Amino acid sequence: MTHVHAFPEGASPGSLPGAGPLTWPTGFRAYTGHGGLRAHGDDISIVASDRPAVSAAVFTQSLFAGPAVVLSRTHAAGQRLRAVTTLAQNANVATGRQGHENAAEVVRRVAAIAQVPDDEILIGSTGVIGRPLPMDTIRAHFDTAAEPGLAAFTAAPLDVARAMMTTDTRPKTAERTVGQARIVGVAKGVGMLEPNMATMLAYLVTDAELTPADLDTALRTAVDRTFNCLSVDTDTSTSDTVAVIANGAAGPVDPAAFAAALADLCLDLTLQLARDGEGATKLLRVTVTGGRDHAQAKRIAKSVVNSPLVKTAVHGADPNWGRVVMAIGKNTDDTDIVPGNVTVRFGDVEVYPEEPEPGTLDTLAAIMRRPQVDIGITLGIAEGEAAVYGCDLSAGYVRVNADYTS
Amino acid sequence: MTHVHAFPEGASPGSLPGAGPLTWPTGFRAYTGHGGLRAHGDDISIVASDRPAVSAAVFTQSLFAGPAVVLSRTHAAGQRLRAVTTLAQNANVATGRQGHENAAEVVRRVAAIAQVPDDEILIGSTGVIGRPLPMDTIRAHFDTAAEPGLAAFTAAPLDVARAMMTTDTRPKTAERTVGQARIVGVAKGVGMLEPNMATMLAYLVTDAELTPADLDTALRTAVDRTFNCLSVDTDTSTSDTVAVIANGAAGPVDPAAFAAALADLCLDLTLQLARDGEGATKLLRVTVTGGRDHAQAKRIAKSVVNSPLVKTAVHGADPNWGRVVMAIGKNTDDTDIVPGNVTVRFGDVEVYPEEPEPGTLDTLAAIMRRPQVDIGITLGIAEGEAAVYGCDLSAGYVRVNADYTS
Repeated sequence: MTHVHAFPEGASPGSLPGAGPLTWPTGFRAYTGHGGLRAHGDDISIVASDRPAVSAAVFTQSLFAGPAVVLSRTHAAGQRLRAVTTLAQNANVATGRQGHENAAEVVRRVAAIAQVPDDEILIGSTGVIGRPLPMDTIRAHFDTAAEPGLAAFTAAPLDVARAMMTTDTRPKTAERTVGQARIVGVAKGVGMLEPNMATMLAYLVTDAELTPADLDTALRTAVDRTFNCLSVDTDTSTSDTVAVIANGAAGPVDPAAFAAALADLCLDLTLQLARDGEGATKLLRVTVTGGRDHAQAKRIAKSVVNSPLVKTAVHGADPNWGRVVMAIGKNTDDTDIVPGNVTVRFGDVEVYPEEPEPGTLDTLAAIMRRPQVDIGITLGIAEGEAAVYGCDLSAGYVRVNADYTS
Repeated sequence: MTHVHAFPEGASPGSLPGAGPLTWPTGFRAYTGHGGLRAHGDDISIVASDRPAVSAAVFTQSLFAGPAVVLSRTHAAGQRLRAVTTLAQNANVATGRQGHENAAEVVRRVAAIAQVPDDEILIGSTGVIGRPLPMDTIRAHFDTAAEPGLAAFTAAPLDVARAMMTTDTRPKTAERTVGQARIVGVAKGVGMLEPNMATMLAYLVTDAELTPADLDTALRTAVDRTFNCLSVDTDTSTSDTVAVIANGAAGPVDPAAFAAALADLCLDLTLQLARDGEGATKLLRVTVTGGRDHAQAKRIAKSVVNSPLVKTAVHGADPNWGRVVMAIGKNTDDTDIVPGNVTVRFGDVEVYPEEPEPGTLDTLAAIMRRPQVDIGITLGIAEGEAAVYGCDLSAGYVRVNADYTS
């Protein structure tokens, strides 16, 4: 059980291996444009490989998965996706039969300008639920703004990450190298964010050459320990999607090295998502060790990272360990958790059962004021471990979500 | 399956059957005093019967249940509780061996002034977790302020409800009559409030004459449909307690009529608790019908009432049905829920799958601005029903909990 130690303590989100602006791996190109989904700025993006590729993808398990997810699932089943397209500002979910027809039409339009078969395209939609897509302005965009062929595909990863944003305050990108190959990822997501099988739109592209099976295993393993260990607000989106496309342009790589690099890149994006959680001012990491198994450790850690009282205490820089033991204690089916065997730490300072000395209260206060707050819990049962990522709960979260749309 | 219809639509919380201030049932008296747990105001309360009584009680299932709950559980097992005492402002939880000794000492002190055997006393504590009780000021209070005997017991139900408050903004009391007998309840609770087996301190006293078995059945049935259908913030307290004491002073009553009156009174208190949820500006009621069974209906309703995105939409008076279907959809194990069979209503207006006509948007907006917002969901599976109660999520919740203590 090395779920926690698989990731270095000092992961540095957003760091780039090379100097200069981030570019796509060999053979990938991208396009962004303004389709009238929002008032200003690009809201349609396409990333495409100029050659056939293999792919793996995971999607939300929501019972109300939208047309984009339903359509993309069937395309992803072929494991040869070559392009991903995203419409931002409208999720196209709970939009009935017309919603499905609109998603299919967008895919046909993208196929035409990217010159890729329909069924090799993944479509993502993110934004308001329950509103029809503005098909008039979207059609006008494809009719007039976009020429067929990849010549118009000049957007950088940062442009695509920006065109995917909704209430995100920052674009999220990450890059890792493995052998001669590179992996580049773009992601978005700030609220309605407790991914169940994936997260709100993260696309990873690589010029590594891999079998579909190796790619699929690497993606599922990475997602389970990264995006699926993230919760901003307990609300699971209807549109979560993570996909990786490998076009082989850089030749073969060691699958294990690739899997490690992919997991590291996914953690990087996960931390960026947590830091930019709606209203977030701090990253919160909860690490549970000594659990019965990984599943229990993750469940307890999620319970703490999701507790509104823990999240508000972190916001107020209050080392309130009482709320942490409360959040552990509400898992009433976990009867093997015995209070006398549990320890709780903020940073390196134990706060339960040993109360901190009065002299360490300043240290604790300093720990709570850091931009990343670490809560460590030992259950004292067995070797199960997990780390989960979230953020504090601020008045900003309420403002964003009481005012957003309608 | 009549879980929902057991309660009238127009339950009127806080309404009193009689005119004038609320008084205790025959044979009950109460005491409040200032024990130094907070700077100002009474923080210790005692309610006692002047004669032997029978009782029933349910407690939190938290793994970190505090000394007050642990001690009270053993006393409640005898089903002959005669008195309940509460310390407000300090939960005395996660306070180690000394915490247990302090709770036992408080019970001995209360036994002395109420002249009731130790093991017929229930003790409740509510407030900060992880701090020792201020035993010096508590001892000083009992040594000097309180004379033995019920002569000093002159407090009204409202006084006791006030002395139990922490961040509550209003005292909660309720009364029902059954035959010649009355039932009077006092309650407190605003946050850390998703009761699992009971709620944060609700005490019910009656002069009805009942067997312990009938009393126990009536309480468990009522709690399951009222306090256990309440969630302010998903956080289950370590100190939840509901107890009912019946001293028989008014003679025998019909057990079924008593059970109905008790359930109605518990619903009344539940609605008062939801309305006074930390930062709450609105009561939120989610009713699910057509579920596989009551358990599924309650789980789906809880999922909606607990969704931060639904709660902030209610706060912003935004009829955002997309967030409601999202919250239903995240119950990914409920695979018998089919989007095409689900309907969602705000008040009487269907919003999914039939989108409201543009002309009804004003009606919808008016519904969302009401002090009570009703969301109705039909699952279209079978006859399972449930109603759950909560509140909106406001910046006030963050303020209260980012600043409270430490």
